[in-house]
Amino acid sequence: MTILGTSMIGFARGASEETFRAVNPATGRDLDPSFSSATSADVDRTASLAAAAFVESSKLAGTRRGELLRRIAGNLEAGSEALIERAHLETALPVGRLQGELMRTTGQLRMFAALVEDGSWVSARIDHGDAERKPPKPDLRSMLRPIGPVAVFGASNFPLAFSVAGGDTASALAAGCPVIVKAHPAHPGTSELAGVAIVDAVRELGLHEGTFSLLFDRGFEIGAALVKHSSIKAVGFTGSRRGGLALVNIAAQRPRPIPVYAEMGSVNPVFILPEALRTRGAEIAAGLHASVTLGVGQFCTNPGLVVIERGTAAGAFIDDLEERIATTAVGTMLTAGICSAYRAGLGKLASFSRTRQATDADAHSAGAALFVTGAESLLANYELMEEVFGPSTIVVESTPGQLMEVARALEGQLTITVHAADGELSSHRELLDVLETKAGRLIVNGFPTGVEVSPAMVHGGPFPATSDGRSTSVGTRAIERFARPVCYQSFPDALLPDELKEANPLGIRRMVFPSL
Amino acid sequence: MTILGTSMIGFARGASEETFRAVNPATGRDLDPSFSSATSADVDRTASLAAAAFVESSKLAGTRRGELLRRIAGNLEAGSEALIERAHLETALPVGRLQGELMRTTGQLRMFAALVEDGSWVSARIDHGDAERKPPKPDLRSMLRPIGPVAVFGASNFPLAFSVAGGDTASALAAGCPVIVKAHPAHPGTSELAGVAIVDAVRELGLHEGTFSLLFDRGFEIGAALVKHSSIKAVGFTGSRRGGLALVNIAAQRPRPIPVYAEMGSVNPVFILPEALRTRGAEIAAGLHASVTLGVGQFCTNPGLVVIERGTAAGAFIDDLEERIATTAVGTMLTAGICSAYRAGLGKLASFSRTRQATDADAHSAGAALFVTGAESLLANYELMEEVFGPSTIVVESTPGQLMEVARALEGQLTITVHAADGELSSHRELLDVLETKAGRLIVNGFPTGVEVSPAMVHGGPFPATSDGRSTSVGTRAIERFARPVCYQSFPDALLPDELKEANPLGIRRMVFPSL
Repeated sequence: MTILGTSMIGFARGASEETFRAVNPATGRDLDPSFSSATSADVDRTASLAAAAFVESSKLAGTRRGELLRRIAGNLEAGSEALIERAHLETALPVGRLQGELMRTTGQLRMFAALVEDGSWVSARIDHGDAERKPPKPDLRSMLRPIGPVAVFGASNFPLAFSVAGGDTASALAAGCPVIVKAHPAHPGTSELAGVAIVDAVRELGLHEGTFSLLFDRGFEIGAALVKHSSIKAVGFTGSRRGGLALVNIAAQRPRPIPVYAEMGSVNPVFILPEALRTRGAEIAAGLHASVTLGVGQFCTNPGLVVIERGTAAGAFIDDLEERIATTAVGTMLTAGICSAYRAGLGKLASFSRTRQATDADAHSAGAALFVTGAESLLANYELMEEVFGPSTIVVESTPGQLMEVARALEGQLTITVHAADGELSSHRELLDVLETKAGRLIVNGFPTGVEVSPAMVHGGPFPATSDGRSTSVGTRAIERFARPVCYQSFPDALLPDELKEANPLGIRRMVFPSL
Repeated sequence: MTILGTSMIGFARGASEETFRAVNPATGRDLDPSFSSATSADVDRTASLAAAAFVESSKLAGTRRGELLRRIAGNLEAGSEALIERAHLETALPVGRLQGELMRTTGQLRMFAALVEDGSWVSARIDHGDAERKPPKPDLRSMLRPIGPVAVFGASNFPLAFSVAGGDTASALAAGCPVIVKAHPAHPGTSELAGVAIVDAVRELGLHEGTFSLLFDRGFEIGAALVKHSSIKAVGFTGSRRGGLALVNIAAQRPRPIPVYAEMGSVNPVFILPEALRTRGAEIAAGLHASVTLGVGQFCTNPGLVVIERGTAAGAFIDDLEERIATTAVGTMLTAGICSAYRAGLGKLASFSRTRQATDADAHSAGAALFVTGAESLLANYELMEEVFGPSTIVVESTPGQLMEVARALEGQLTITVHAADGELSSHRELLDVLETKAGRLIVNGFPTGVEVSPAMVHGGPFPATSDGRSTSVGTRAIERFARPVCYQSFPDALLPDELKEANPLGIRRMVFPSL
């Protein structure tokens, strides 16, 4: 399929004189074709189309929304060869990894399809009221309804699963919201191919063209204009803290503020309790090394901070980890920008801690790095707790007393992991209690990378891991981000949404009162 | 019971040199005793206590939380005579109304008690994973957990049900969050009595004293310091748009922003469709008049905007409403400030529309007022859509075409009401669709005042009706504001919260997978 390099404004294409090209990170060379940057007029047009589409999409039956999501998944699979080939060129991610990511992407679309086909996610509640009461208590029925058009900003590190047809888009479409994606400039061709899969699905099913649009821009302006647009009612974002906070601030300054769900990453601390370190140190070092270096460390859940207790087991563990890090193959990073940020991050960490190992690399590639410091240094230098995106980690040696201090000093995290021997967790209840207040997901004896797409998953966490710690961007709970409760009082049955009609024509789970 | 006039810092009392007194709005005279304003040191102490209490409260069994809420309700009832007497003195609300409001308050506490005793509200999800998969899919379990200490700002117009022991406090305590209330300065004695009922319940049940604190201050500083405090994790507020937005801005500027649930009121538009106006005009006028003037119009859901179609039925309807407004008894308002703001609001409305009737009043009392204007004037003068808190309403005459324009121009509302004859709603589907995007609650052939405490209630709505249109401050859904999802991966069963243990010891509703 030919990549046209133009924004998708519903079923139309937009072109402009300002263009940019994708770069092959493995070679540093530009890729064809060039991509037209969207204009502010394009933003207005897509937003108007989305607002018009919302009238339709908000009333679309769950089965129809499911059909759309399944069709998108099918179209992605039908075009998978070109999609993966292009994604590989634009990201240098291995083809095998991209094939897995595509399966995750289509699986996610089908998971949301199943969720909305079932229909029970809307949290329908029916209170029949009480006609005998004086004054009569009215009939009240409420459910989650879609919030309106959603702007989505994809991540560079998951060009499929957290990008154009990724989790934010899937959950927003599932909720009944039109979507406008601002394509990540690092993989515009991949974005266009995924966008075509979506637009084709919208067209094939005869849905409103404003259901989906895709805008290209290398800079920040178009994204900012999108978030400012009065027709946009929520924002989904996965990326850097700087980028996420910028969108949060723009949204807060709108005359009518809107929610921004920005997943901004974290250092994903791993606490290794003494007995676990003593008995399973080598096994944990191996697992940790794999987790740190997986995908050249380019995961939001990459473990960047490892807390252990000082002692002999600590020395052996660090030596073991060091040897693994030292023999790690260099890997090509997603972009030159990420690569240079990684290098700068390593420099910063080195100024606060002992560097045990950092393998060499060229301008596009990064080696793994290991730093070692003491808890007192960590507690004194906040910078050590900031994410360095890439295959590095800091081992922090602490006294038993400092363990709690470190836990209390942590910022909000996507994940926190604890390695513990049998019975060791029970004696660290207080630690677990503190850690629970800091993370979206707590892991015992595992590793944080590998975010399962599951109804029970929480890929979120307190600020600054995300801008809204009440949400998750992975798993079925993610749909709730793009919905709000609406109550219908004394409505004629025929005018209620099907979910709330007395006869329950959709057969969904509902709470029905009186009963409380 | 003696009112001491001092802040309640857990089980201790705080005094300072800066004092203020409540005013009897019926007489304009100061009431005894004087109240000490809290200091910033008091804010720190209450916040530290709350943070310490959270460790306990977040793990308290639902049955124990239920016991606390029921005990608070019991204590309020035991002290109801003094409570209602004082509330009457401080607010001039009739004793009968206050008795009803107390029943609402205790009913609300018991509703949340029942909710957390049942325990199913936490949205527990269990994914057993797949040990056969390569790599194995881990066991994942997630549920809603309390967010942390909550700051609550009560409303002046509901000194019981939306104040110290009101819905925000009840839902936050139910979720497992300690609460610090900044007492509304218009009813400090009522606040203290309600606060004592809560503190006594905390003490009687042997719970951590930081579970509840109450701070007095006439000004804005203490409330602002509370919202800025790093230990506070969420804010509940009911009051003016100015006050709510101020808190929203403070919270957004924190190093770690927190959610603010500010219910800021709205004009609660009422659309009367032509056939309903023709056939039920007199009945609607009577109901509307009662809704506008109920409690001297001091309700968030007071209908301040009535949209009708021009024509003969319109004239009769306006004449009817005018006569009712003209013969409405003058009523004492909650505070002199509210009374003067109401007068200023009437002046503003009069400058844009024809005044049909405004009864006279003295400095503490307000008469009902009716304004009439055309849709073109409403659409040209945004000020006409701003809430004027008190017993006034504007009737807007429009052409059939303007009806949709007015609907589209509306801001977010707590409620929107439509009066329609049989079949008339079906021919106004487009209107209903637009109105749904603007309100938390849609009402057919009723009136917006009277917010039922029901599991199906939504007392919320898009900005600026509230600062967070994804929430409700009335009904059981309100508990979700003070919780966030947490996922436990590969946890030993014994260390999971009871809600997620394999054997389901609490017998709650859960989603269990595989099954999707």
